[in-house]
Amino acid sequence: MYRTNTCGELRLADKGRKVTLAGWVQKSRKLGGMTFIDLRDRYGITQLVVESDAAPELVQAASSLGREYVIQARGEVVERSSKNMKMPTGEIEIRLESINVLNKSVTPPFTIEEESDGGEDLRARYRYLDLRRPPLQRALALRHRLAQEVRSYLDGQGFMEIETPYLIKSTPEGARDFVVPSRMNPGTFYALPQSPQTFKQLLMVAGYDRYFQIVRCFRDEDLRADRQPEFTQIDCEMSFVEQEDVLNVFEGMMRQMFHNALGVDIPDPLPRMKWYDAMDRYGSDKPDVRFGMEITEITDLVKGHGFGVFDEARYVGAIAVEGCAGYTRKQLDELTEWVKRPQVGAKGLVYIRLNSDGSVKSSVDKFYSAETLREVASRCGAHDGDLVLVLCGEKRKAQTMLGVLRIEMGNRLGLRDPHVFAPLWVVDFPLLEWSEEDGRFYAMHHPFTAPKPEHEQWFYSDRKEDLERVCANAYDFVLNGTELGGGSIRIHDAQMQSRMFEVLGISKEDAEYKFGFIINAFKYGAPPHGGLAFGFDRVCALFGGQETIRDYIAFPKNNQGRDVMIDSPSRIDDTQMKELWLESTFRQ
Amino acid sequence: MYRTNTCGELRLADKGRKVTLAGWVQKSRKLGGMTFIDLRDRYGITQLVVESDAAPELVQAASSLGREYVIQARGEVVERSSKNMKMPTGEIEIRLESINVLNKSVTPPFTIEEESDGGEDLRARYRYLDLRRPPLQRALALRHRLAQEVRSYLDGQGFMEIETPYLIKSTPEGARDFVVPSRMNPGTFYALPQSPQTFKQLLMVAGYDRYFQIVRCFRDEDLRADRQPEFTQIDCEMSFVEQEDVLNVFEGMMRQMFHNALGVDIPDPLPRMKWYDAMDRYGSDKPDVRFGMEITEITDLVKGHGFGVFDEARYVGAIAVEGCAGYTRKQLDELTEWVKRPQVGAKGLVYIRLNSDGSVKSSVDKFYSAETLREVASRCGAHDGDLVLVLCGEKRKAQTMLGVLRIEMGNRLGLRDPHVFAPLWVVDFPLLEWSEEDGRFYAMHHPFTAPKPEHEQWFYSDRKEDLERVCANAYDFVLNGTELGGGSIRIHDAQMQSRMFEVLGISKEDAEYKFGFIINAFKYGAPPHGGLAFGFDRVCALFGGQETIRDYIAFPKNNQGRDVMIDSPSRIDDTQMKELWLESTFRQ
Repeated sequence: MYRTNTCGELRLADKGRKVTLAGWVQKSRKLGGMTFIDLRDRYGITQLVVESDAAPELVQAASSLGREYVIQARGEVVERSSKNMKMPTGEIEIRLESINVLNKSVTPPFTIEEESDGGEDLRARYRYLDLRRPPLQRALALRHRLAQEVRSYLDGQGFMEIETPYLIKSTPEGARDFVVPSRMNPGTFYALPQSPQTFKQLLMVAGYDRYFQIVRCFRDEDLRADRQPEFTQIDCEMSFVEQEDVLNVFEGMMRQMFHNALGVDIPDPLPRMKWYDAMDRYGSDKPDVRFGMEITEITDLVKGHGFGVFDEARYVGAIAVEGCAGYTRKQLDELTEWVKRPQVGAKGLVYIRLNSDGSVKSSVDKFYSAETLREVASRCGAHDGDLVLVLCGEKRKAQTMLGVLRIEMGNRLGLRDPHVFAPLWVVDFPLLEWSEEDGRFYAMHHPFTAPKPEHEQWFYSDRKEDLERVCANAYDFVLNGTELGGGSIRIHDAQMQSRMFEVLGISKEDAEYKFGFIINAFKYGAPPHGGLAFGFDRVCALFGGQETIRDYIAFPKNNQGRDVMIDSPSRIDDTQMKELWLESTFRQ
Repeated sequence: MYRTNTCGELRLADKGRKVTLAGWVQKSRKLGGMTFIDLRDRYGITQLVVESDAAPELVQAASSLGREYVIQARGEVVERSSKNMKMPTGEIEIRLESINVLNKSVTPPFTIEEESDGGEDLRARYRYLDLRRPPLQRALALRHRLAQEVRSYLDGQGFMEIETPYLIKSTPEGARDFVVPSRMNPGTFYALPQSPQTFKQLLMVAGYDRYFQIVRCFRDEDLRADRQPEFTQIDCEMSFVEQEDVLNVFEGMMRQMFHNALGVDIPDPLPRMKWYDAMDRYGSDKPDVRFGMEITEITDLVKGHGFGVFDEARYVGAIAVEGCAGYTRKQLDELTEWVKRPQVGAKGLVYIRLNSDGSVKSSVDKFYSAETLREVASRCGAHDGDLVLVLCGEKRKAQTMLGVLRIEMGNRLGLRDPHVFAPLWVVDFPLLEWSEEDGRFYAMHHPFTAPKPEHEQWFYSDRKEDLERVCANAYDFVLNGTELGGGSIRIHDAQMQSRMFEVLGISKEDAEYKFGFIINAFKYGAPPHGGLAFGFDRVCALFGGQETIRDYIAFPKNNQGRDVMIDSPSRIDDTQMKELWLESTFRQ
């Protein structure tokens, strides 16, 4: 026993107790003849004091402590003369009787405090020191709490946690696999799972009824910002269910997580939005509904007034930005440049300023009367003092651009408080996406997703228009403009599955080669089933009010997929290469 | 909603209720004009009945059902005329009003019952069908329960579940790593972790104080029976602790698991046995203490009687096998052959029969008087009717052989009931093992294990005899002759770590190369810490009363490391090979 108490638990009620604490020296300072030491551990900080009349060895020991030294300190809990009510232990301090240095520390390369002075790279290299900082400790503590909540909820709902293998088989569909050469089976490879999709469906075939797992997944993608080659999923599947059952179970899970981890009560039931509505109103299939500023179609109002751009556009839409009529020409030019960046891709931006004096000013004044502009503004719900922003183009593309602009304006106006939570389900996704480029349909979710029963007649139709309007029993859990999870009801019927492959232009032989083994399993009595998966890293980050997941992963990789702390990936030695039947060759 | 109830929950109290069930047809049979169907799901089996006077379509539907068809059935709960009190639902049956076939099934390749008629290979290929069998369902349900118990206990003890990376760095020490070629960093590899050892120690450096994880680990070994290339560990580490603290926390965990999952109360505190005692008394560092039959040294009694084998032996030991004096010559010959197999490695076997009539018969009668033989037997605790078996050789080797023989005799006598549980800690392992072959010491646990504080003076001695007697603060959790887990208090002092490398003959440069990154981390204030890891697959199997782990893993690999269900590992295509900068070459 190195300690009787942690550095976070002593209170005034403990006054007079002899205690032993252990932890890290956060800082130490001299004041008169006294030495004050802030001792830190995971649980908090407690102030230690060595009086000026203490034994000389003790005074000496106290004054030789450096930052991040690990010490064991014994003494008596006393009431502080000047209390710090901001910290839980702030009413007491420990009058020391002895100090035992358990380990020294060289000077850390950056400060270990709420805010650090270290750059990102340096902190990544010394991740074990960065992890000592309170924001990271809070992040990992939240992650721990959420994981326990997930499991306790699902366990309570009769879900079984079943581990699926990590050394599986490479499938030629989808994103790139990480592979693992086999030493015992020369020339062959395992693959690391991109998700346990196949295995969880097999568990349904095997009758496990309700499965879950908090599981690592792997995807060898070119890393965009805030993607990790390995990530964690809350993975779930249920049998004998319809979409309604799945949504109920998992909004219950989220409700418990919000309540128990954050003390936040989300609506019951959660709002649901159809995919088509989400696109029309928010220009996104993951709408941020913390604020309004919805997209309004104004095509009919602006066509035929001689403004060529709008006259030729398939779709014209607008958003009303509250209180921004005062935007200067410079601000509007900047905004125009912003939407013209390739990341947004607009050709230009039309504005209508509803000045507070009742006048209207627009970049297309010469084509439209003040009356028409007012009509547009009024349909968008704009009032005097507001700014209306207009984009046009092909319908979904223009809506998407408006959606991006809406988020940007939301950011600029401070409408996206990360500690306000607005979750919802987006439902009724289209089953299929037509690719003009390839002249074929692709599955929007995956080829095992079932069409909605009421759309089945269209699914079996040969007309492209019919197929395009088939919706799937697929659903996404969306929070604050981010998709946290999604899933679908799966096809369990062999004939429907064949039809799906046919629609996707996958031949029987190809289907057999790519999915043969699961198709075969489905012949032995597959129950109706469906499920979903949440991205756990992102769940943690959003619950923590952060946009980036990196602080919610103990040992993340950088944007090049490297762990700079352990210096990985790295070369392996020749013996290892030979044992794995490999030689490495380098292209120029 | 496909069902109102599961197939395991309806009772006589539900009589009269209209219910809908869904599940698999276990069997169906005709009796008179009636059809009885056993409907199965994860929760149980419920009998359905279609009366002879039911609607013809229903009778027809009922009689066309095959084994493993998935159906939905609606009807009324009625009291059975002939009750089956062996099954929880055995007092009722469902008088059907409708049957809806949700999915047909082709005939399964083996029977899906408590005992299957399928061979091991066939069942592995159709694992999803084998998983429908009750023993596997029970195995995975137990595993689920144990995982929840582990987490709820550790969470309650202030442990944080922290995920460590799976794509790490290959280390040249220890068993072989599985590696993962990096596409983005040509010619380099990640490695899959053999354990999160380094990371959990870094988490202690980072101040996380109490860490745990139920985590997959990977080891590219030549597979012995019942080893898997991927396996699951309960991995834990604690700061500011001594051995006593670690043992207390984790026997508490095991106590809760035994109590809550099995209703078994294990001793409090658990017995502890020093490594030297375990070797002397049981010839094993993982003694099965469910039965006695302890090893007794008899070297002093048998030397100097002219029997060359014993006269030359460094050690002679014996076990008393109760009630086996009646062993025939044939049985004893067979036993002698058994110990001479290479797996045991004895040169021969000496026996002493204490006949029930009081006479003594031994294979070495001509060298020893009946009196000496009685003295030997008496020291072993043998009585009339017992059989004493004697082996000799180098001390630890002979003890180990006697240990193996003891287990065999325990099996033969039925002393190893898998549902009797005798857990204990084995403690005070030697820190170092001398290799005659290499002429150097190896770390018995790993090079970060600390010597016991009271043995430190020997640790800093240069005499081989001193170093050999240094014990470590290392401990194993042993259950019924199997090591379920083990760990140690780690070295946290830089000077002691240097000394360790010196003792192991690892140069400064080598240490830097192999362990540099963790050694560096330890310079920034490493707390005293220690931990342990349990083999979760084996924990589950032993709790389930089984010796093999395979049934406790949903999708295991076979002895060649293959998953025959998904046919993995397998070839990958050339594009993938090229993208990974790899070419495969085959040696002859």
